[in-house]
Amino acid sequence: MASIFTRIVSGEIPCYKIAEDDRYLAFLDVNPNTKGHTLCIPKEEINKIFDMDEDHYLGLMQFSRKVAKAIEKVVPCKRIGVAVVGLEVPHVHVHLIPLHDMDDMRFQRKTQLSQGEFADLARAIAAEVYL
Amino acid sequence: MASIFTRIVSGEIPCYKIAEDDRYLAFLDVNPNTKGHTLCIPKEEINKIFDMDEDHYLGLMQFSRKVAKAIEKVVPCKRIGVAVVGLEVPHVHVHLIPLHDMDDMRFQRKTQLSQGEFADLARAIAAEVYL
Repeated sequence: MASIFTRIVSGEIPCYKIAEDDRYLAFLDVNPNTKGHTLCIPKEEINKIFDMDEDHYLGLMQFSRKVAKAIEKVVPCKRIGVAVVGLEVPHVHVHLIPLHDMDDMRFQRKTQLSQGEFADLARAIAAEVYL
Repeated sequence: MASIFTRIVSGEIPCYKIAEDDRYLAFLDVNPNTKGHTLCIPKEEINKIFDMDEDHYLGLMQFSRKVAKAIEKVVPCKRIGVAVVGLEVPHVHVHLIPLHDMDDMRFQRKTQLSQGEFADLARAIAAEVYL
């Protein structure tokens, strides 16, 4: 069965899109650790990040860096944290998380945003992405 | 003042080394989340990962992938998690963490190893790194 992220790539499930090219997609995490928490994924459904071939993997990391720099411009934070876990959704995703303290990295404390806030935030970050 | 990682790079502080080239160093975290938890750093002391220039950053991610593949061969786990935080030591470090469950990513539950276990583990992983 297609992963939830493949269904987002195909447009079957909507997302608050941040950036997209032919191989990668970035969108807001709808259950964010902090405001601005974004996921960067390869469009191809691959389970584990280190199983990606080197070019595909480095492309994802390059794409993620561009997205992170846009988040930093829009969301006040100490720095952007990075996490790749993948124990729940078997489709590679790089978490980019605006950090204020260590608890922001633990995936326990979550932040609530309204649909309007998500949409405004996605628009603001997307405007700062230069692929 | 030089960061603790710069002091490791210079040899002033010892480490359980996994791999090294002219720009990067990998060594075991001595306060590991799980057995095999490894840090990959640029030798140059830079605070934030997304402030590295693109080539330097992509080199670090390429180096980290090679180290992760070696860890996977030696340490039984579901997958290798990745975390970049940097709120405590202002010198870029990529955490590579053998994962068994989500708690392994939270930096709360820690694992104890003896000096002999660290040394044996570092040797075993180092033998599988192909830079």
